[in-house]
Amino acid sequence: MTNPVTLEDLRAAQKRIAGTAVRTPLLPSLHGDADRPLWLKPESLQPIGAFKIRGAYNAIAALTDAERSRGVVAHSSGNHAQAVAYAARLFGAKAVIVMPDTTPQVKIDATHALGAEVVIVTPERRDTAAGELAEEHGYAFVPPYDDARIIAGQGTAGLEITEDLPTVDTVLVPVSGGGLISGIAAAVKLTSPHTKVIGVEPELAADAAESFRTGVRTTWSTTQTYRTIADGLRTTSVGVLPFAHIQAYVDDIVTVTEDQIREAMRFLGLRARLVAEPAGAVATAAYLFREDVLPAGREHVAVVSGGNVDPALYAEVMA
Amino acid sequence: MTNPVTLEDLRAAQKRIAGTAVRTPLLPSLHGDADRPLWLKPESLQPIGAFKIRGAYNAIAALTDAERSRGVVAHSSGNHAQAVAYAARLFGAKAVIVMPDTTPQVKIDATHALGAEVVIVTPERRDTAAGELAEEHGYAFVPPYDDARIIAGQGTAGLEITEDLPTVDTVLVPVSGGGLISGIAAAVKLTSPHTKVIGVEPELAADAAESFRTGVRTTWSTTQTYRTIADGLRTTSVGVLPFAHIQAYVDDIVTVTEDQIREAMRFLGLRARLVAEPAGAVATAAYLFREDVLPAGREHVAVVSGGNVDPALYAEVMA
Repeated sequence: MTNPVTLEDLRAAQKRIAGTAVRTPLLPSLHGDADRPLWLKPESLQPIGAFKIRGAYNAIAALTDAERSRGVVAHSSGNHAQAVAYAARLFGAKAVIVMPDTTPQVKIDATHALGAEVVIVTPERRDTAAGELAEEHGYAFVPPYDDARIIAGQGTAGLEITEDLPTVDTVLVPVSGGGLISGIAAAVKLTSPHTKVIGVEPELAADAAESFRTGVRTTWSTTQTYRTIADGLRTTSVGVLPFAHIQAYVDDIVTVTEDQIREAMRFLGLRARLVAEPAGAVATAAYLFREDVLPAGREHVAVVSGGNVDPALYAEVMA
Repeated sequence: MTNPVTLEDLRAAQKRIAGTAVRTPLLPSLHGDADRPLWLKPESLQPIGAFKIRGAYNAIAALTDAERSRGVVAHSSGNHAQAVAYAARLFGAKAVIVMPDTTPQVKIDATHALGAEVVIVTPERRDTAAGELAEEHGYAFVPPYDDARIIAGQGTAGLEITEDLPTVDTVLVPVSGGGLISGIAAAVKLTSPHTKVIGVEPELAADAAESFRTGVRTTWSTTQTYRTIADGLRTTSVGVLPFAHIQAYVDDIVTVTEDQIREAMRFLGLRARLVAEPAGAVATAAYLFREDVLPAGREHVAVVSGGNVDPALYAEVMA
């Protein structure tokens, strides 16, 4: 594969993000099965509420001073926007975030509040507008997942998992564009080859599971992927570089239902005191409800990838 | 004062609890005031959902093998029960928990699930029953807060705060029986004398604030203290040894209203992705709403002491 992430890349990312990303603890759960103990990796506790800060900070830190001084640009309607804005601000760099005009005002405001300039475009213009701004102003483009620096940054969570629990048998990770699972799978396999890495997707947005099964990177329509409440996992296909990592390092990709996602959100709130967004709860849902399709193994880690949830949805799920 | 907790006691406790209590991270908040940055110390992420595991484990670890082999006894209707049950199980020791017959079934079940024997008594018999069981069976009594081993255990959270943020100006801590604030105040003042330690109570259960102001340890009635939604802070007076620590080490005790507690629970859920019980939210409430009575200072830490909240109440607060 082209430019796979190496252990050296991962360790360099780990040094760069130290003191910026929270080194989240592995939380032992009292509510797992006795013969399948469960730990949670709460990336929802990062300053912006999701793991995305790891990759964004690593990518921006890897730029030259000259590049950073011209500013960075990204496109996102979600957690990547805030991650890039936050990381750029830490470097005193200008950040321009392209957002589709369908983005909820609350997310636009949050990105503004982190000091970024927000450019609103039609959804069709989302990808091209960022590239044009980069071209025109010399901004460095910070991609959401299809990038080795991003993958290495997200993978630092995997290094922390095997450092804290070297005996872990199974690591469960949400899959959207594939940056998180690519990084974690590379980190886990390069430091603990016996450990299984399992991706988890909603049944209603299972493009990565299909791609994994068929060996062909597949795209689902937004009509399909927008059916799930897991708004963080509605990406219609994994990236090219992520798919290569998934094929090299991931053992399986399993799916969970909408009800299982809601149940897992309740479990995380009431049993682990963690507010998880739907996307952040899918790995826990797989632990709770999909033992039938998981590899045999004792010690399980479920990655809780984010906690930025709509208050009304959260109150409804918890009620 | 009799047997004040020393830095040596605190460090010994820190060694004992390593690997059992989670070393919770200090979480930087993006939503504090720019000139008063806020960090959260999420003790709600401990395995039993509250800081109590620190003190209970330290107290049981400090027993001799012979004492532990006879078993331990405690009385509690809340987090201390689960902390003692959990810690005893880790040592393979028998735990007997005396609970008043007013205890919700869910808390009885949770204590049972941790392997403890539960003895239900009338509320009047709560204190005496545990002593009688200790006498009759040779069990070691594990007090909830009026004990140097418990205070030293809870204080390990304070050591972690000054280790992680040596420049912290103000640490805000909930006050109930006083074990947590005693330990944290001793740890903070003995490692970072410039740092202010501020206790926080509900206005409706402000016995410690009154005691602090008058210099006399005061008892409020349960009719008074049971008015607050903060069920973890309804203790009617601080303990004797805690009061001595409070007088020696605490700079002030301030109060918050019921509405401020609810607002702080929402802030913690939506802005920090932490499920906090009402008692766990009072320190954050003081940061958010009581700047008028807090000492001038830049870097603030609010201790989120626990997250064991009734699901219906939580859904209502978040709605």
